[in-house]
Amino acid sequence: MKNTVFLLALLLPIIGIAQKATEDTPLSKITRFHQKHQYALLKEYVEFLSLPNTVNDTASLRVNANFIVAMMKKRGISNARLLSGKSPNAIPAVFGEIKVPNATTTIVFYAHYDGQPVNPDKWAEGLSPFTPQLMTAPLDKGGKMIDFPKENEPLSMDARLYGRASSDDKAGVFSIITAYDALRESGISPTVNVKFFFEGEEEKGSTHLNEILENHKEVLKSDLWIIADGPLHASGRKQIVFGVRGDINLNMTIYGAKRPLHSGNYGNWAPNPAWKLTRLLATMKDDNGRVLVDGFYDDVTPLSKIEREALAAIPDPAAMMQKELAFAQSESTERTYLESITTLPTLNINGIVSANVGKLAANIIPTMATVTLDLRLVKGNDLDKQAQKVINHVKKQGYEVFDREPTDEERLKFPNIATIRLGHGYNAQRTSMDLPIAQKVIKAVQNSTKEKVILMPSAGGSLPLFLFEQILKTPPLTVPVVNYDNNQHGENENLRIGCLFDGIETMAAIMILK
Amino acid sequence: MKNTVFLLALLLPIIGIAQKATEDTPLSKITRFHQKHQYALLKEYVEFLSLPNTVNDTASLRVNANFIVAMMKKRGISNARLLSGKSPNAIPAVFGEIKVPNATTTIVFYAHYDGQPVNPDKWAEGLSPFTPQLMTAPLDKGGKMIDFPKENEPLSMDARLYGRASSDDKAGVFSIITAYDALRESGISPTVNVKFFFEGEEEKGSTHLNEILENHKEVLKSDLWIIADGPLHASGRKQIVFGVRGDINLNMTIYGAKRPLHSGNYGNWAPNPAWKLTRLLATMKDDNGRVLVDGFYDDVTPLSKIEREALAAIPDPAAMMQKELAFAQSESTERTYLESITTLPTLNINGIVSANVGKLAANIIPTMATVTLDLRLVKGNDLDKQAQKVINHVKKQGYEVFDREPTDEERLKFPNIATIRLGHGYNAQRTSMDLPIAQKVIKAVQNSTKEKVILMPSAGGSLPLFLFEQILKTPPLTVPVVNYDNNQHGENENLRIGCLFDGIETMAAIMILK
Repeated sequence: MKNTVFLLALLLPIIGIAQKATEDTPLSKITRFHQKHQYALLKEYVEFLSLPNTVNDTASLRVNANFIVAMMKKRGISNARLLSGKSPNAIPAVFGEIKVPNATTTIVFYAHYDGQPVNPDKWAEGLSPFTPQLMTAPLDKGGKMIDFPKENEPLSMDARLYGRASSDDKAGVFSIITAYDALRESGISPTVNVKFFFEGEEEKGSTHLNEILENHKEVLKSDLWIIADGPLHASGRKQIVFGVRGDINLNMTIYGAKRPLHSGNYGNWAPNPAWKLTRLLATMKDDNGRVLVDGFYDDVTPLSKIEREALAAIPDPAAMMQKELAFAQSESTERTYLESITTLPTLNINGIVSANVGKLAANIIPTMATVTLDLRLVKGNDLDKQAQKVINHVKKQGYEVFDREPTDEERLKFPNIATIRLGHGYNAQRTSMDLPIAQKVIKAVQNSTKEKVILMPSAGGSLPLFLFEQILKTPPLTVPVVNYDNNQHGENENLRIGCLFDGIETMAAIMILK
Repeated sequence: MKNTVFLLALLLPIIGIAQKATEDTPLSKITRFHQKHQYALLKEYVEFLSLPNTVNDTASLRVNANFIVAMMKKRGISNARLLSGKSPNAIPAVFGEIKVPNATTTIVFYAHYDGQPVNPDKWAEGLSPFTPQLMTAPLDKGGKMIDFPKENEPLSMDARLYGRASSDDKAGVFSIITAYDALRESGISPTVNVKFFFEGEEEKGSTHLNEILENHKEVLKSDLWIIADGPLHASGRKQIVFGVRGDINLNMTIYGAKRPLHSGNYGNWAPNPAWKLTRLLATMKDDNGRVLVDGFYDDVTPLSKIEREALAAIPDPAAMMQKELAFAQSESTERTYLESITTLPTLNINGIVSANVGKLAANIIPTMATVTLDLRLVKGNDLDKQAQKVINHVKKQGYEVFDREPTDEERLKFPNIATIRLGHGYNAQRTSMDLPIAQKVIKAVQNSTKEKVILMPSAGGSLPLFLFEQILKTPPLTVPVVNYDNNQHGENENLRIGCLFDGIETMAAIMILK
């Protein structure tokens, strides 16, 4: 099998002419481009991955930014430069632009070049975050380490490249700029004006993205953002994700006596905040996962007909996942997995802590009990309003709610006190599938693959995609390029080699959408 | 004030003769004894406290045991010796005996000579666990360090002696043996056969007490045990405590998915064990502190008339404590503080932990949620039966209960799984106030003080006093001698000097009960 690939690789430049008559579409040219330059592209990508890029390593991030500028210039993107925020410690984004004569549409292609922090000790033996290593297959599927192929040696598309940011998200950066390179060398003009925008603080929560967008509104003017981030569907099929959920965290503490009390000398008498908290939380959700907070499901913008149809067409991974995760019953019998994570806000307990348990437990009455809740939001929810519904519910249960520690006087006055502090959060974002430009992107991506593209109305997770709509009045669409089993954020992050080359095709397909 | 005390101390041996006509009771002789020997007694006690005695320091504990034997021999208790358990690592108890001609009653006087572990760094500057230090008053009430008085120099009864075990419980050991010494020197014969029993493993949970009692049943034969441990009432009044609550711990874990899940990608779908646990616990106790577990309050032996009257006569410290502890409402409006801690079993949450909260929280669905409950037991409760009531309640809520981690197959089969593990525990013990010998002890202790003795039907806390009833068929009564604000178990443990000398009188009074 490998030999066949090897022979084909050698023969392609020769048989290319013969195939031209039947196969010479723009995308077949892109395929030929990356097959022809496989060795050089892989070499360049490995060099890119060798640059440390953890999100708090400011100096290294600037090296990465300059490296990207150089890669862009090499590809004929002459206007490549850095876009800064307002704060001096904002890591700049890398920008570039290709103006296309007569194009009436402009698309910004987004990826990020910063990576999650690393703990090299946790990586498997022989692997290291910034010394990329090729393997025959995933580590947990018996993959063996192999040398990088020499020029004209074959390379299996199922091989895995291990290294930090190999998937998240240098693959996005590299696919995008190489897609343009492929079009250029193939003599194909994009049908849209192409802008490039590579962020350097995504893994920190896009701390200064708002500043950069505000600072460069004119430069970033466009009709659509394409976000090349996140993984493909678990089936390996390409997908377009039309939105994300929003998120806000709520930290709540309930109080008992001021100091831990001997459970014998005070038990049955002193109030126990852990009992109070359990009874309070129990009023918030029923046994079938329905949130009982007043109006919790109001405000939700329902899915449109096209979105409902798209959702229904996605294979439901629930049964497979449930088995792997080893539980007998999901939280609710009333909704499917996909409905659960796309169409409804959540009220989730991230954690509860009151004193200690097990061997660390003491026979005491705890002084306080704390819960951290996270509220995922869907389109229509406003983060402050949604959090306020929970606060109102707590008040309705007879609690006096503070946003700080109560004083002794207050503790002596109110039988039930809750301190509630809200975390930083943001709203959901969802781009309508009905938009003409969304329909064009769907068609373009579908054109680049034989399998049916998955159209996901919203991801379950959260990203600050609302910023593009809020600051730039421009809708974003997420088009992932990497394998779902990439160990993103953890140790042994990896990329399926085929995804990098497929990603070039996907991005090129969007640049020539019709 | 101090000068007056000093003068009185000097004059006492002289004016003693004049007072003899009106005051020459057996107890006034005991008072004169300790006033006369104040210097020597304090010196000897300080030497005793200088011996390290933390519960895991086996070698030092043996030094203490031998020191006690020597103190006993010096006092004419010639039969003093060590009683061993069965295990070679059991720390021996110190035993001694005074046989009284014609006495028909035998009382064993119990105290313990081991102390809680120490962290010298936590002790106040200038204080050290095994370098006893005298202070004018408690540290937190502005006490100043003073030198030990020289012979015939006055000593304030309100002075505090700082050091590990100064209160808990070398004061018990020293009061008891010195009480006999005082009787002997005063030419007063005890009215009962006196046995001495000083344990060396109390702070470890009396690990081998059962073995020692079993091994020496005949030697320890008696009609009553007097336990000289724990503090006097907060008012400073003497008290007799007739029982203790039992205790058993129950550790329960509820399960979700096998690994922590992203709360966005799985929220609303994967079961959350923290939600399950809160709803389960909420079924166990109502808003007024009543346990809703079937039959939870069955089996309780009610207080007798005399016990109810004694309880009603005790000043209720609730209002004062509530203010200090800063809470507005106790767990139940249906019972007083004293009723709460003496007459009812408890179901208390010691702690709850599921993942993390606050800054440590992650946006995840936890894999498990654990609660540690402690069940205090009162007379009539059986520990296994009481724990089983809780287990039955959990089953009734639809849970499959295991005493170990569930397997993956079990997780996939049962929607609700709880792993419940019981800790080591023991039953309550309560000696009836109606017993003739109990009535005699009450009378004797009352005879040694002008203030009304507090008769407490049961303490809220737990000690394995059931062992005396179970193994030796002998009732115990607890007669504390030390100040309640002694920082027992913590840093800066201390003894009010007056308590040591009062304690000698209390113990002597019991030795000559009628």
